[in-house]
Amino acid sequence: MLAARSEVQVDNDEVRVTEWRLAPGSATGHHTHGMDYVIVPVVAGEMTIVAPNGERSRAQLAAGKSYFRKAGVQHDVLNETSTEIVFLEIELKP
Amino acid sequence: MLAARSEVQVDNDEVRVTEWRLAPGSATGHHTHGMDYVIVPVVAGEMTIVAPNGERSRAQLAAGKSYFRKAGVQHDVLNETSTEIVFLEIELKP
Repeated sequence: MLAARSEVQVDNDEVRVTEWRLAPGSATGHHTHGMDYVIVPVVAGEMTIVAPNGERSRAQLAAGKSYFRKAGVQHDVLNETSTEIVFLEIELKP
Repeated sequence: MLAARSEVQVDNDEVRVTEWRLAPGSATGHHTHGMDYVIVPVVAGEMTIVAPNGERSRAQLAAGKSYFRKAGVQHDVLNETSTEIVFLEIELKP
C-alpha cells in the first residue's frame, strides 16, 4: 500500500488542520484519533474504512459536506477507487 | 445586495460548522466574529472584504486551502465575481 500524504495547514493552541491526499491504492495506515475532529471533504469520493477487527465499510464523501467524530476512533482509511481522495482533518485541541 | 445563504452542518459543545454560499452579487452583511474560526474554501473564488471603516480588499480562495482567524474580526464579505463562492466556517467554542 502507498502511504497517504499529509500537510499541516494550521497548528496552534486550539486547532490543527491537516490536508490528507490519498492517491488510488493508498492508505493512511491504522491509527487512533487522539482528539475530537471534523472532516471536510475537498472532492467527492469514496473511502474504504477498516476497523481494528478487520471489518470493512465504505463511506461516500461529498465536497464541502463535513462531519464530526469524537476522539478514540480507530481505523485504517484506504482509497480503493481510481480517483484521488482529498479531505481536511480539523482536530480540536482540548 | 442579495443575502448570503448559510446552513449549519455541525453544532455541538466544541464546534459549529456552517456552510456559506454567496451567489454573485450577494453579501454576508457586516458582522463580528464571536469565536476563533477556520475557513475552508470549497471552490476557488475571490471574496471582497469590507472593513468597518469602509476599506475594501480582495482575498483569493483556493479549494481546500484553509486559514485561521481570531475572534473579534469585523467585516462584510461580498461576492463581486460571476461565480458562486462556497466555504465552510468552523467556529471553535471556548
